[in-house]
Amino acid sequence: MGAALLSDHAAEVLIPAAAAVGITFALVQWLLVSLVKLSPADDRPSTSSSSSSCGGENGQPDYLVLEEEEGLDDRAVVLKCAEIQSAISEGATSFLFTEYQYVGVFMVAFAVLVFLFLGSVEGFSTEDQPCTYSKDKVCKPAVANALFSTIAFLLGATTSLVSGFLGMKIATYANARTTLEARKGVGKAFIAAFRSGAVMGFLLAANGLLVLYAAINLFKLYYGDDWEGLFEAITGYGLGGSSMALFGRVGGGIYTKAADVGADLVGKVERNIPEDDPRNPAVIADNVGDNVGDIAGMGSDLFGSYAESSCGALVVASISSFGINHELAAMLYPLLVSSMGIIICLITTLFATDFFEIKSAKDIEPALKRQLTISTSLMTVGIAIVNGLLDAIQLITNRRLFGGGLFFCVTVGLWAGLAIGFVTEYYTSNAYSPVQDVADSCRTGAATNVIFGLALGYNSVVVPIFAIAISIFISFSLAAMYGIAVSALGMLSTIATGLAIDAYGPISDNAGGIAEMAGMNHQVRERTDALDAAGNTTAAIGKGFAIGSAALVSLALFGAFVSRAGILTVDVLTPKVFTGLIVWAMLPYWFSAMTMKSVGSAALKMVEEVRRQFNTITGLMEGTAKPDYATCVKISTDASIREMIPPGALVMLTPLIAGTIFGVETLAGLLAGALVSGVQIAISASNTGGAWDNAKKYIEAGASEHARSLGPKGSDSHNAAVIGDTIGDPLKDTSGPSLNILIKLMAVESLVFAPFFAKHGGLLFKIF
Amino acid sequence: MGAALLSDHAAEVLIPAAAAVGITFALVQWLLVSLVKLSPADDRPSTSSSSSSCGGENGQPDYLVLEEEEGLDDRAVVLKCAEIQSAISEGATSFLFTEYQYVGVFMVAFAVLVFLFLGSVEGFSTEDQPCTYSKDKVCKPAVANALFSTIAFLLGATTSLVSGFLGMKIATYANARTTLEARKGVGKAFIAAFRSGAVMGFLLAANGLLVLYAAINLFKLYYGDDWEGLFEAITGYGLGGSSMALFGRVGGGIYTKAADVGADLVGKVERNIPEDDPRNPAVIADNVGDNVGDIAGMGSDLFGSYAESSCGALVVASISSFGINHELAAMLYPLLVSSMGIIICLITTLFATDFFEIKSAKDIEPALKRQLTISTSLMTVGIAIVNGLLDAIQLITNRRLFGGGLFFCVTVGLWAGLAIGFVTEYYTSNAYSPVQDVADSCRTGAATNVIFGLALGYNSVVVPIFAIAISIFISFSLAAMYGIAVSALGMLSTIATGLAIDAYGPISDNAGGIAEMAGMNHQVRERTDALDAAGNTTAAIGKGFAIGSAALVSLALFGAFVSRAGILTVDVLTPKVFTGLIVWAMLPYWFSAMTMKSVGSAALKMVEEVRRQFNTITGLMEGTAKPDYATCVKISTDASIREMIPPGALVMLTPLIAGTIFGVETLAGLLAGALVSGVQIAISASNTGGAWDNAKKYIEAGASEHARSLGPKGSDSHNAAVIGDTIGDPLKDTSGPSLNILIKLMAVESLVFAPFFAKHGGLLFKIF
Repeated sequence: MGAALLSDHAAEVLIPAAAAVGITFALVQWLLVSLVKLSPADDRPSTSSSSSSCGGENGQPDYLVLEEEEGLDDRAVVLKCAEIQSAISEGATSFLFTEYQYVGVFMVAFAVLVFLFLGSVEGFSTEDQPCTYSKDKVCKPAVANALFSTIAFLLGATTSLVSGFLGMKIATYANARTTLEARKGVGKAFIAAFRSGAVMGFLLAANGLLVLYAAINLFKLYYGDDWEGLFEAITGYGLGGSSMALFGRVGGGIYTKAADVGADLVGKVERNIPEDDPRNPAVIADNVGDNVGDIAGMGSDLFGSYAESSCGALVVASISSFGINHELAAMLYPLLVSSMGIIICLITTLFATDFFEIKSAKDIEPALKRQLTISTSLMTVGIAIVNGLLDAIQLITNRRLFGGGLFFCVTVGLWAGLAIGFVTEYYTSNAYSPVQDVADSCRTGAATNVIFGLALGYNSVVVPIFAIAISIFISFSLAAMYGIAVSALGMLSTIATGLAIDAYGPISDNAGGIAEMAGMNHQVRERTDALDAAGNTTAAIGKGFAIGSAALVSLALFGAFVSRAGILTVDVLTPKVFTGLIVWAMLPYWFSAMTMKSVGSAALKMVEEVRRQFNTITGLMEGTAKPDYATCVKISTDASIREMIPPGALVMLTPLIAGTIFGVETLAGLLAGALVSGVQIAISASNTGGAWDNAKKYIEAGASEHARSLGPKGSDSHNAAVIGDTIGDPLKDTSGPSLNILIKLMAVESLVFAPFFAKHGGLLFKIF
Repeated sequence: MGAALLSDHAAEVLIPAAAAVGITFALVQWLLVSLVKLSPADDRPSTSSSSSSCGGENGQPDYLVLEEEEGLDDRAVVLKCAEIQSAISEGATSFLFTEYQYVGVFMVAFAVLVFLFLGSVEGFSTEDQPCTYSKDKVCKPAVANALFSTIAFLLGATTSLVSGFLGMKIATYANARTTLEARKGVGKAFIAAFRSGAVMGFLLAANGLLVLYAAINLFKLYYGDDWEGLFEAITGYGLGGSSMALFGRVGGGIYTKAADVGADLVGKVERNIPEDDPRNPAVIADNVGDNVGDIAGMGSDLFGSYAESSCGALVVASISSFGINHELAAMLYPLLVSSMGIIICLITTLFATDFFEIKSAKDIEPALKRQLTISTSLMTVGIAIVNGLLDAIQLITNRRLFGGGLFFCVTVGLWAGLAIGFVTEYYTSNAYSPVQDVADSCRTGAATNVIFGLALGYNSVVVPIFAIAISIFISFSLAAMYGIAVSALGMLSTIATGLAIDAYGPISDNAGGIAEMAGMNHQVRERTDALDAAGNTTAAIGKGFAIGSAALVSLALFGAFVSRAGILTVDVLTPKVFTGLIVWAMLPYWFSAMTMKSVGSAALKMVEEVRRQFNTITGLMEGTAKPDYATCVKISTDASIREMIPPGALVMLTPLIAGTIFGVETLAGLLAGALVSGVQIAISASNTGGAWDNAKKYIEAGASEHARSLGPKGSDSHNAAVIGDTIGDPLKDTSGPSLNILIKLMAVESLVFAPFFAKHGGLLFKIF
């Protein structure tokens, strides 16, 4: 018991300490980024001011040369960059505030639903009740669980929104700085972008951990010994996190892709002006979109994954022997793994920013990939340490669960994530044959490009699914549903690094946009393009992680749901289950149809507006008149707010309706169906989109003889590639990444509402 | 017992009688089609000869006018048509012979596998064994089942090949005749095409029924009272039918789409010459492809569906009380339903060819749709009659199963099929807003066209899945797995009409091609185009039927498999099942990736060849030199033979490997996963492709102000539509329709091999 207490105390100290370290590290990175000044120093001549602003420590001689070559006044460039950045930042802030108003209304309404549904389980009785799993003990009343679930829901939702917002702020703070650093060389720019990504990664990971930890401790003040109720209520945190993520991803995704598709179709295809050209009226909306969709949306998304996998593991543990025997340190194992993850990622980050140096464009992608291998390798040791410590303090030595079984569960998830990452890279990077084949098919036009791209996406599903299946099989065999939950956690344990890499992409993309808009030297643009190309691949890798972990998380949540709903077997060969299975294997298609059509319609409106401006504003093409950016921003905003509601409602209401009307068996079939079907579409959509994007970039970059034979920009092959890229936009940035939220969200929602469904669900069959 | 005997005799007479009626009707239709002469009558002046050849009964005045307008010598046109037809027919025959050689090798090899696997169940012992379901009875030895399963497999495979071949022969016999009839008006042409479709429909339906019936009776000579073994062996017929269908669909699909895509990309897009222009070197390959892919492939496919649904129902019945109590008429219920279907379809056909007349192009689609409603309505009465008779002869009145439960099972399947058909029509006909929206999105280019098209396909999944789910739920609730099997049979009971409508499409398409190649008046081409546009929609409807019935059939087979393999529950929440579920929900993607990439690669080769010919053969564009058709035919042939093997092997070997290595639980998960995931992709792929095709036709036809604002041919919008159409080709004619075979085939294969897997499967877990 003494050892147990010791370990309990240790856990209670270690978790917040790790979170604090993570937050501090994020702030230090922010400080380092902020050293790049965006305001030119007073009246001093611009070149010297800028060389002093970059600290001079590593001043590359080519920086000065370049500057002179360009013959631009540095002060003007810096001011221009600052101006564009603030336009993007304002646009993004204003959109997010608008979005959050709508989402806020939903959040409150849904919180009321949570309370009413869960409160009604025992008719709002305030009397204590026998526990569900330990019938001999007394647990808190259902209405208390309803209240605390509601609080957890609001807490998760708020944390998710804050995560997205912070991410966006950091990104818009960093992108012009990355542009300015790009004048000094690709290495400097890389570090600026990567550090900014790290700020976001560590803030989110640490924040998510800290809030969850605090919530558990606060809730415990009321719940005391009733861990069943405590962790049941805590799952509301996951629900809140991922419902906000859904709206963030869908709303942001529609925003960014409507603007992107609209800008490309008129600008690149019809008017033949470069991407991000300031003459394009949709250019600001496009750059705002990167920040609200790819950054804020993804921030919310990965926070949601993290919150759910932790909650999933906690709730499964709470109804296992850990919970029943009140072994706090063992219960907090998921949080300890995440804490260790933060420390490991911290060390990993130093490899990118301090231990190695990027000297040329070709170093970028290996550097990013190295982050993944380093973090995975170190984390394997980290997991061994956590598990060794738990066993060493003899807490549960008699079972040696942490030494053996659980270690493999977490590790298999971790390495499966890496495998998925590398397979994704193989299918989406233009260094390998799949994307090159897609590029090659552009020779015969857009149609073959699309056929090959779709085939590539379908093909790319094979290995990740095997990786997921093996993880499931091993971890399930070793530790049942808890094994799957911690396996998901293993995959997400290096989330800080994953997020840093992921956020790095849109930051680089924006930096390139700013370079273009500020009229900077083409070499600056080439450098940011090199950063961006690597970012495209890593974005696909990040999505691979997100989807893989979503599959594991939702299976674990599904298991917890089945257990909580009192279902003994989910037999496919019963009409209720099979009907649920086949109908809701359709849900991801329905959802994708909605989101893709939303992007399509919004893009059509955008195209018409951009065309209108080019046709009616005289001097726009010549650069003598300014376009009306605000109208395009408004089109994207209105479209995304309006269009995010139906798919959001579909996902949020389906489990409620299915559970209430058809009961828990159908709901179980539903979850299994949506899971197995959604994973496939999500992976193929993301990879198809990533491959098209990089096939286009492959032709544009012309780095090999083969690539040059397809180019240059504006050739027939390139035009075909642009069409593919445009089609891929909603696939890879709207439908695909939203699907992983869909499957997790429906699972966690079913789990939260399980007490209600178990008691009052299946109305249809009760009536007839 | 007397009543039972009476009913047994009645069944034994009724079934072959219905088949004979069907075959006779088919021959009469053929005779009617053959009245259109392809050889000009001797030396008489051409116009009078042709008017006499059409019987003169309904000689439209505009026909003669047209003829004079064109100023072409009729004799020359007829000769030209005959020449083209024989080129197409020869190409198709030669391809099918080549294909059948390869497939024949596979067939023999697989037959050996079937025998070895099933024979080894009891170590090739020739002693009688206790029955599986009635332990107190004695059944024939496993090696006999192996032998008869092998025979049934070969029988099914041969019937399937013959069905495909006959279909092709009929179609190539009919297409030039349809072209010639089109000179006399759209109504005449419609009747020619529809009658030819009916020949195929009735021949296949009757033939499939007859062979199956004969096989049962022949096998009974050996099996006697052992119905368990008898119907277990009979399932080999379904396996044979649908394994050939797979190769037919995949091989034919690759052939036709490689040629089609290749011809379109160079001809229509680059050279701006019309579709089917004789200057296009790929034009003969394209027309041959329609016959080997859309006709022979589809014939084999629907024969396979029919064979499997019958076998599925029979095997489920044989292990139910029907089988155990040896109620032959009740056992043969599935065949009685099919027999009634033939009679009903016969009446229905008369509505198209005799009771109504097509006066203008706008009558065509309603006439085809009327076929569906009429056959469904009449068949509902037909089912009531069959069931009423069975109950009336007091065979099983005490249960009144046929009066109540089973009637609803069959009927719900029948009407669900109609619902799927109409929804498919809504999403793929250009008379409704979904396709018009897709066409409208071409305004902003190919990218938005593709985005909208994909979204449309995804959306079109929703209602059919609900229809399937409702059928499953009702029929499962009423009569368990047997209910589902007869529900599938209900959906397929009007197969003769379905096939007639389906075959009508490619015949019209070819007729248009021949008109173009023979240089006939543009009005003739417009008429065949009108036939073809309606055919596109009905083709999509046919695919909808095929997919819907495939879902039901494979679920029934799945149920039979589970029962035969001795699995009690297929619990999703066990690692073996869930792993099977998620991994093989991926299979349809893998398979689609293979087939689409095959089409893409073959099309690339075709494009290069066509381009080469246009560039090197002087006078080709001017029409003074003839292209080298044979090389293009060879490219398509080689590609399809080579490329059909890997996807075919994937589908055929997966159940064998999974069952042998991982055992029956994983295989059960596999079947469920492939089923729920495959249905969705199949529906969305077919409908997306159909919608793109008709969106293009909508713009080309320019029938409304909206359509005209997008056209004419060659406009930017039209070019975008052509790209969509090209992308849709492999989706709707290769991947999509092959997927429904995939899901059925894996189910029936698992069922056939179930005795082996149950005994020797799961090696991996036996070793460790």
